[in-house]
Amino acid sequence: MKVSARSHVPAFAVMEVLAAANARRAAGESVLNLCAGEPSSGAAEPVRERAIEILRSGDLGYTEALGAPALREGIAGHYRRWYDVDVSPGRVAVTTGSSGGFLLAFVAAFDVGDRVVLARPGYPAYRNILTALGCDVVELDCGPATRYQPTVEQLAALHAESPVAGLVVASPANPTGTMIETAELEALSRWCAAHGVRLVSDEIYHGITYGGPGRSGVGATAARYLDDGAIVVNSFSKYWAMTGWRLGWLVLPDDLVGAVDALASNVALCPPALAQHAAIAAFTEEAYDAAAANVATYATSRALLLERVAELGWDPVAPADGAFYLYGDVSRFLSTGPGDGRPVDSVAYCERLLADTGVALTPGTDFDGVHGGSWVRLSFAAAPAVVAEAVDRVVAWQRTLAR
Amino acid sequence: MKVSARSHVPAFAVMEVLAAANARRAAGESVLNLCAGEPSSGAAEPVRERAIEILRSGDLGYTEALGAPALREGIAGHYRRWYDVDVSPGRVAVTTGSSGGFLLAFVAAFDVGDRVVLARPGYPAYRNILTALGCDVVELDCGPATRYQPTVEQLAALHAESPVAGLVVASPANPTGTMIETAELEALSRWCAAHGVRLVSDEIYHGITYGGPGRSGVGATAARYLDDGAIVVNSFSKYWAMTGWRLGWLVLPDDLVGAVDALASNVALCPPALAQHAAIAAFTEEAYDAAAANVATYATSRALLLERVAELGWDPVAPADGAFYLYGDVSRFLSTGPGDGRPVDSVAYCERLLADTGVALTPGTDFDGVHGGSWVRLSFAAAPAVVAEAVDRVVAWQRTLAR
Repeated sequence: MKVSARSHVPAFAVMEVLAAANARRAAGESVLNLCAGEPSSGAAEPVRERAIEILRSGDLGYTEALGAPALREGIAGHYRRWYDVDVSPGRVAVTTGSSGGFLLAFVAAFDVGDRVVLARPGYPAYRNILTALGCDVVELDCGPATRYQPTVEQLAALHAESPVAGLVVASPANPTGTMIETAELEALSRWCAAHGVRLVSDEIYHGITYGGPGRSGVGATAARYLDDGAIVVNSFSKYWAMTGWRLGWLVLPDDLVGAVDALASNVALCPPALAQHAAIAAFTEEAYDAAAANVATYATSRALLLERVAELGWDPVAPADGAFYLYGDVSRFLSTGPGDGRPVDSVAYCERLLADTGVALTPGTDFDGVHGGSWVRLSFAAAPAVVAEAVDRVVAWQRTLAR
Repeated sequence: MKVSARSHVPAFAVMEVLAAANARRAAGESVLNLCAGEPSSGAAEPVRERAIEILRSGDLGYTEALGAPALREGIAGHYRRWYDVDVSPGRVAVTTGSSGGFLLAFVAAFDVGDRVVLARPGYPAYRNILTALGCDVVELDCGPATRYQPTVEQLAALHAESPVAGLVVASPANPTGTMIETAELEALSRWCAAHGVRLVSDEIYHGITYGGPGRSGVGATAARYLDDGAIVVNSFSKYWAMTGWRLGWLVLPDDLVGAVDALASNVALCPPALAQHAAIAAFTEEAYDAAAANVATYATSRALLLERVAELGWDPVAPADGAFYLYGDVSRFLSTGPGDGRPVDSVAYCERLLADTGVALTPGTDFDGVHGGSWVRLSFAAAPAVVAEAVDRVVAWQRTLAR
């Protein structure tokens, strides 16, 4: 019996590391989980309390395909609060995590064979969802010279070779944490609009930022460029620490609202209803405060990590201006030839590190099919004490690999 | 800016009726919601209580992409309990509703351009998801002569014209409620296996059945034919009344487990975690009993409806052997020419019925693009008193349309 050709996408390795880590934990062994991009705090009190109320009262049927009206209003309010941008609730589509949002956005915007541009390194699901949908993924090699982000010059060169239909950007980016500032985003958006290229802006790490010279507070949003055709993707998973709830949203240009509504009603029916009703409480002062406190905790972990980068021996590391990842090159701990007993690549590095020390990291191969074999991603969304202990274990373990 | 050609799928009209009904209710007007395929009871007590416990204790991170191991075990146990079939938990993929399951199954099994066969009338999302994925949907006209189900003869004829890659069947079917009995399912599966055709069996209404001569208890499962390549789709939405929780599952043949795992980790990360942990309690005696009590209530509503079919004047109506739908032909209440003041088709019929009486039904156009303009679907998952009141209102309203 046939298995589809398009289903041969790589698994998201982080989910496999997570499964191995969970199995290890279930067997009673110590695990320091720094692989998943997952805040350890969980949802804020008002969100949980609201969920419990709803479970007691009982209204948990389907919502509208684009989401409960009150939540769409709440999300629109969030754009006024954070960005001073007026977004009509009618342009907001609540989705099953940002994953569900990407799927809908990609199907609505791109046909089979369309060329869609991504930055490499980047979040692997962009590439794999697009591939499964029959799109032609074009990766731009984005290194330290462009702060791991695509530039208008790179795009223009690609487009001149053969027209592209779309561009996906992420700021703060996963795995590098680098950000696209307002002027850069505006330049990308302007170029996309002028060339009929659909801009998809992944903003799921907005608000998880660490300031510094020239850095905006929460991130620059493409919601300013809806009238130019841009699509915004966001989620409750990261800033509001609601990963397992599977709730995200799109902010859509007018020309895509109808298509996404029709697709959503077929592909998903509606996003998880309990999560939707509870997430309205994410826009309370108490929940914003809880999220800000989480970001302060990530900042503590980040400072600790950056202090110990030299000791870790990862070089280079990406800037980590936002999100909660340290993406570093572990080349000096990898094998340089047969028989030196060191891991052959970052996948082997992560497997052995987990087996030997219980520290779970994600191999860079998830994010970069070309250079990722020598990089790893450490998620510092875990508690600072966990991060500190993990660094101790990694440093000690790496010494056992010394040449 | 381009909107994709493939995004031009029809919206699922029931979701639009639902939105109109919700708006009407929000405006303080009476609504009898018989449009959505949605039990009114909500999840059983043990499921809700388990969810509340988890919300209090706080573990709501990502699960494994194919679902929490304990839930996969629970689902495997359900196959032993109901069907006396041994299903390895490793073949169970927990999904975001059956919707998420269909998406994964279709991507894993079918490529762009593959011919996939569906019964008409049928659940519209099959067609629309497949279309969005670039598959070539072939509808079989299935009328009363074959109890609205496809036959091996029809399939063989189609396959002879041009090879087909897949067949989607549903039993009990939506909207007709007709069932495929064990011998028929075995014949379909055998034919599919012999011709390299992937069988996808939608079993989300299993357990919601009303007996009668030759009718099996819970439904015939394709889980018996996994070794022949069949895929089973199921859900907690209907039997366990957990629609808004968005939780379903696949039972997969071995050749698709790896592909679905990889796809799920990219397309969804994981199904809603709270729903997963809580749904383990769906396999307790108390939850099975609550579900059985719900089915007894549907049976009451069904008996009431069948008694009043002549009074309703819908003719013919499909058998409604399972599920909770009455699918009937309302031709005699539709316009036969300009100026007679009657609704021109079932869409207009449903719009006017809702506006005039507050009764929400679903137009047959959702399920049948050829004949559906003269059919409507009534969901009797609502409480019997609601169903009775709705019939009163429909009958009275139809009189106002009399010629």
